[in-house]
Amino acid sequence: MAKKLIGIDLGGTTTKFAFIDTKGNILAKWRIPTDISEHGSHIVPNMIKSISDQMRKEDYNTEDFFGIGMGTPGAVDREKGTVVGAYNLGWDIVQPVGATISANLANSAALGEYWKGAGDTAQDVVFITLGTGVGGGVIANGKLVHGINGGAGEVGHITVVPNGYQCTCGKRGCLEQYASATGVVHIAKDMAQTFTGKSRIKELIDGDEDLTSKMVFFLADNGDILANQIVDRVCSYLGLALSHIGNTLNPENIIIGGGVSNAGNTLLQPTTRYFQENAFPSVRDSTKLKLAQLGNDAGVIGAASLALQFRNNQPFAAK
Amino acid sequence: MAKKLIGIDLGGTTTKFAFIDTKGNILAKWRIPTDISEHGSHIVPNMIKSISDQMRKEDYNTEDFFGIGMGTPGAVDREKGTVVGAYNLGWDIVQPVGATISANLANSAALGEYWKGAGDTAQDVVFITLGTGVGGGVIANGKLVHGINGGAGEVGHITVVPNGYQCTCGKRGCLEQYASATGVVHIAKDMAQTFTGKSRIKELIDGDEDLTSKMVFFLADNGDILANQIVDRVCSYLGLALSHIGNTLNPENIIIGGGVSNAGNTLLQPTTRYFQENAFPSVRDSTKLKLAQLGNDAGVIGAASLALQFRNNQPFAAK
Repeated sequence: MAKKLIGIDLGGTTTKFAFIDTKGNILAKWRIPTDISEHGSHIVPNMIKSISDQMRKEDYNTEDFFGIGMGTPGAVDREKGTVVGAYNLGWDIVQPVGATISANLANSAALGEYWKGAGDTAQDVVFITLGTGVGGGVIANGKLVHGINGGAGEVGHITVVPNGYQCTCGKRGCLEQYASATGVVHIAKDMAQTFTGKSRIKELIDGDEDLTSKMVFFLADNGDILANQIVDRVCSYLGLALSHIGNTLNPENIIIGGGVSNAGNTLLQPTTRYFQENAFPSVRDSTKLKLAQLGNDAGVIGAASLALQFRNNQPFAAK
Repeated sequence: MAKKLIGIDLGGTTTKFAFIDTKGNILAKWRIPTDISEHGSHIVPNMIKSISDQMRKEDYNTEDFFGIGMGTPGAVDREKGTVVGAYNLGWDIVQPVGATISANLANSAALGEYWKGAGDTAQDVVFITLGTGVGGGVIANGKLVHGINGGAGEVGHITVVPNGYQCTCGKRGCLEQYASATGVVHIAKDMAQTFTGKSRIKELIDGDEDLTSKMVFFLADNGDILANQIVDRVCSYLGLALSHIGNTLNPENIIIGGGVSNAGNTLLQPTTRYFQENAFPSVRDSTKLKLAQLGNDAGVIGAASLALQFRNNQPFAAK
């Protein structure tokens, strides 16, 4: 029986798992809530228990697997096997992740898309994921770029508004505060204050009802004027930040994933326009913005591919 | 006799040449003015003549050389051997550069620094050159990144002021318009209009005398208040743009070269401050800004290394 891989996509709300074959096909997938209490100290034990349970259920044992790859928010130290600065997880101090092979969360989604999805054969691809936070992954010359301190792909912290909204990372004006799910709602609330026309968004906010980024995009699609202004503002910041990436790397594709990207063309079209306005001509004419194709599975597939890379090429020992 | 390399650093004002050994040492160097008349059609013939003349002078013939590497502004199509969009050269149409191996000008300076200078053994290095224009080069996982259309490293066209100064590339607010030698003077002239205190810079501008970026940095060093405000503004834009690069790639070093970088710490210190204000914590704590060490020779050395790479590894056929 061919050996398999285990992929873990550790998110602030949910941890996703999959057993994956070496061609990137998902054999089984499941999820558990992420318990971020007590500085996230339950996270790793919970993961190990969940994998053991699933193995028993599927009648696998550890010899059936090459290894485990994990995507996590925060900065990964691959030599020490530690993670730090995953603020959404409560991991504000250094966390030993032990024997697991960790990569940045959106990094592993980038690898997943590269392996099986929208990135396919391109040598240079950048992935950006718009979820609770905004993460990213950079593949240059066909390989994932880690950076000197695991900080490559922190594109969610590109400053788009100098001295803008306070970010959880400590600095201000980060893209994450404007283009994540919560960022969209933050912009909506600010813009609603000065909007004087008729708008369902304004009614919801004035009535203190729940508002989600999904509703903002839905209402924009349905002609709500304020919703369209909000979407335009979100896309202006996203397009600007992506132009910085484009002007630096001129990748074949910049792939936009995560929950906010479910808005599809309502997000993609204005973002592309702002990207093109700010991209150098030769970049504008060649780098394409695309929506992610693997959706929620990108993270686990990419994380599993890390275990495969580690096994075959040992790129993680090269640092 | 060990074979040699020829490096060409094609700039908007001057074309620099060098004969270089395979360890990156300069054996001979010389320069000619760049004749950009008639859409730059004299550039390539002039280069060929100059190299032939020098070979005769040094008693070399073509068999003594592995090949020629050239750095050029604009976007390079390595398959077709053409260059387009080198606006500073008058090359607004596609230019056949024939058998020469071209790379983007600052790209080749990046390679030069990587090979012999400040980049030394780092896997991930970004080079930015502040001269007549602002160019850049990106090395990721130890290899020069070209991008899908030769546009990687166009960091001079990162937007730092939305709807800001008009750039020669057609878009607005590019870093090049704020941090190149001419950009510094442009900012100086704008800021002098509203400055009411005593300043030698303001006297020079009001008296319609020549002002250079070198003078701005010199006067800033000597306590001129307006000069210091100008330098602070230049560095705020430069530091911001470099933070975008840092947050995307987390390179070990970002190396600042070109004429403007001769200002040394007067440029480097405030730029580092603005970089750090806008860099994600794990990037801020690890990516270092440095001044280039090879100075004017970085371009020819890097260009020559292209010829060597082409010979040894054929990375340019891989596209």
